[in-house]
Amino acid sequence: MRPVEQNEVAVALDVGGTWTRAAVVDEFGKVLWRNRVATLRDQGTEALIEQLAQSVGQACDIAAPSSIRGIALGMAGPLDPRTGVLFAPPNLMEMDGVSLTQRWGDSMGAPVLVGNDATLAALGEYHYGAGQGCHTLVYITLSTGIGGGIVVDGQLLQGASGFAGEIGHTRVESNGPECGCGSRGCLEAVASGTGIARQARARVARGEASLLAAEVSSMDAIDTVDVFNAAARQDRLAQDIVGKAARGLGVGLLNVLQLLDPDLIVLGGSVSQQWPVLAPVVEAHVAEHAMNSHFRESFKVAVSPLGDDIVMLGAAALVWDTISQLSAYP
Amino acid sequence: MRPVEQNEVAVALDVGGTWTRAAVVDEFGKVLWRNRVATLRDQGTEALIEQLAQSVGQACDIAAPSSIRGIALGMAGPLDPRTGVLFAPPNLMEMDGVSLTQRWGDSMGAPVLVGNDATLAALGEYHYGAGQGCHTLVYITLSTGIGGGIVVDGQLLQGASGFAGEIGHTRVESNGPECGCGSRGCLEAVASGTGIARQARARVARGEASLLAAEVSSMDAIDTVDVFNAAARQDRLAQDIVGKAARGLGVGLLNVLQLLDPDLIVLGGSVSQQWPVLAPVVEAHVAEHAMNSHFRESFKVAVSPLGDDIVMLGAAALVWDTISQLSAYP
Repeated sequence: MRPVEQNEVAVALDVGGTWTRAAVVDEFGKVLWRNRVATLRDQGTEALIEQLAQSVGQACDIAAPSSIRGIALGMAGPLDPRTGVLFAPPNLMEMDGVSLTQRWGDSMGAPVLVGNDATLAALGEYHYGAGQGCHTLVYITLSTGIGGGIVVDGQLLQGASGFAGEIGHTRVESNGPECGCGSRGCLEAVASGTGIARQARARVARGEASLLAAEVSSMDAIDTVDVFNAAARQDRLAQDIVGKAARGLGVGLLNVLQLLDPDLIVLGGSVSQQWPVLAPVVEAHVAEHAMNSHFRESFKVAVSPLGDDIVMLGAAALVWDTISQLSAYP
Repeated sequence: MRPVEQNEVAVALDVGGTWTRAAVVDEFGKVLWRNRVATLRDQGTEALIEQLAQSVGQACDIAAPSSIRGIALGMAGPLDPRTGVLFAPPNLMEMDGVSLTQRWGDSMGAPVLVGNDATLAALGEYHYGAGQGCHTLVYITLSTGIGGGIVVDGQLLQGASGFAGEIGHTRVESNGPECGCGSRGCLEAVASGTGIARQARARVARGEASLLAAEVSSMDAIDTVDVFNAAARQDRLAQDIVGKAARGLGVGLLNVLQLLDPDLIVLGGSVSQQWPVLAPVVEAHVAEHAMNSHFRESFKVAVSPLGDDIVMLGAAALVWDTISQLSAYP
């Protein structure tokens, strides 16, 4: 990134299926202001776009207008980074086919940029998180879904069409559980929050013995944290599900390690908080199955220190990177 | 690559476990001279290095000394591209720990460069083969082993330590057959020439009915082509092994597709000649399991047109790329 002028800021949004977060971020990645609203769902495309415009407007009101160098939004779904058009985002279907960069054009008073949320999170991690100084960084969000981003030499690896990074849909278990994408045995089906809770609900519903059956008010109330808690109390069913999640994560991380040879893999998202529980199984898998000692020794995992700000920090980094590229090619 | 001066050539070697090929290659990727000798095995490190020096010397004698801009060797094994040191290469153990760049220094009259053979093949495919013009190219060699390389924006993706591209050791089948690397269910165990033949031998030896039992002189004589031929004649066992190889390849290619979003995947090596047999199963897997229509539609596979020259062409490309980078940073 070029050295940014003093007092320049980015307006950054993280548009998720549940929350829309907004922030004003300075050139050092310091969040000067942040806000969060429940994402307006099931009320149509126009209502959601209007809500996002309001979030942008609020952030712009906080910052001095002349200081805003760009507005960037991390969106929960695959999108074409060249056009900004979202592509059947499962948790944000209102935005299917919409490009906010095209829609808003110059009307916001600053350039509007969009990116996939997990991809931008990788950029945030590289510039402001655990990935600083990495040559090859893999960031993986273990959350409702599993997504990721790859940063090489400070540049996002976008792929030919901008859809790279879908580690959540690499297969880690032959004949594994069904995935939301329609396939089976994807990392997301085995190790995401949704996947872990879904397996527990299905198996309790089938009558398997578990502490979970007694402790929750209804089957639908079983969530991922319940499963990890039950596993900690030696519940067999919960231990089995957590064990499979950890082994699936072991397979997925080793595949990525040997394909991309990163210096660091950073995990973010709610399930990454369970890394101390998952790590022994994942590390044992890598120790046993890595093809040689280089990969055994170079396997390093960190949990993101950036918390809920990560996508917004990545969006801010996108603003600074874009300005830098524009000024490099005047 | 920078425009290369007229009459400049590269001396390029492909050092494999079976053959060592040498060539003189001009700036347009035209092979002006080529030669092949059986790689000297089991006679120690010094004997092999001496043989390689002779191959280099022969090629240098063919070209005018002043025209040689570099000497590059593609080596069958993992190596550190910064130092050139080979790292426990299973098919070239004589070279473990050796760096020809360090060993030969300036004594050859031109800079000496080394690279992993499959990685250099990707570069050859990008500059002179089916991958020309690709933004993100994945090259995979299906041969004795399975290796690969990734080229993004004309640059090899090396990873943090230069070991990226090991697609052969991504897992494609839980509890799959044992792999030479010590793990199980690797793409290499399921779909390499060695893996296919090894499975056939083991199952025939266990007494499974097959045309293969009658047709070959000894169990050890069953090779990959025999298995594909028997499958074509409806032999059940051979069809089962070929089917598993194709499904494994489907899983491996879809993983890579969704992780890297390449515009093209190029297959090389002897088993790639069987692509017409494998393709229907691979394509059906991708059609059924891709996470969305972008990946279904962007899945494109080509068989390399470069044949046995591919690694040498990649080595030549490494020479031109290196000259270009040196002249960019004087």
